[in-house]
Amino acid sequence: MGRTFVTEHTNMIMIYNKEENKAVVINRKLSWCGISFPGGHVEPGESFYDAAVREAKEETGLTVRNLEFCGVIHWHNIDNNDKYIVYLYKTSDYEGELTDGTEEGDVFFMDIDDIKNTKENNRIAEYIPVFLDGGISEAYGKYTNDDDTGFDILYF
Amino acid sequence: MGRTFVTEHTNMIMIYNKEENKAVVINRKLSWCGISFPGGHVEPGESFYDAAVREAKEETGLTVRNLEFCGVIHWHNIDNNDKYIVYLYKTSDYEGELTDGTEEGDVFFMDIDDIKNTKENNRIAEYIPVFLDGGISEAYGKYTNDDDTGFDILYF
Repeated sequence: MGRTFVTEHTNMIMIYNKEENKAVVINRKLSWCGISFPGGHVEPGESFYDAAVREAKEETGLTVRNLEFCGVIHWHNIDNNDKYIVYLYKTSDYEGELTDGTEEGDVFFMDIDDIKNTKENNRIAEYIPVFLDGGISEAYGKYTNDDDTGFDILYF
Repeated sequence: MGRTFVTEHTNMIMIYNKEENKAVVINRKLSWCGISFPGGHVEPGESFYDAAVREAKEETGLTVRNLEFCGVIHWHNIDNNDKYIVYLYKTSDYEGELTDGTEEGDVFFMDIDDIKNTKENNRIAEYIPVFLDGGISEAYGKYTNDDDTGFDILYF
């Protein structure tokens, strides 16, 4: 069947209020600490789209619809060729009551310009161009087993 | 690191002439036989975008630019959880001389409506909505080890 890569398939969803220029973030404290958009792992037998809708609900309490696919984050481990893919979606079509937080961390609306300027080490600011720039569909980064934060991201 | 899936990462590129409503196809004879858009496997250390540009050149002789990301085909093997992903791109920005064909098969421009109506068993007609309908970003299909053609595709 040709070349294969051990791959984690995940998602991240930007749930935004256009008028207020704000989006829902989680201040993660369990893993990938710091400001993040909601998201998580794709389960077996689940479409990428359905996984994003489920994760948004689990992490924010909101029901999201009409998700727009923005592109992918493509992390490639140059030591073992493993990949970590993040499928990015955004929507301003949501309803329900926003949770205060889960075991993952506090959940709240944050100004999008503040998200762009965050200095957290979780790279969310570097993901923003794929969400917001229609001409960008991939953020590609190589990493090693020793260090997954020291590499530049290339945009395509 | 969480749940992983053995995954093939591939691409397919629709190189089209808008005025003439035609796109470059390969009539594949080696594998996945029948009418197909150019494309192939992502190599280690290569971005998805660069892989698409390379495959377009190798299979058609054309240099392509300004590729627009259309979405993904997401095949999921329900027997072993393996995945086969096709990243879909389109562009009308190309130059060079179209090859007559390669060992993969004959290469030529084909009317897009004829591609939509092709009865080949390689499912290209079912991929067309992801290329052409901006509201669709994923075609999701489950298959088994015994039969990879008998399952319906769901669109998201």
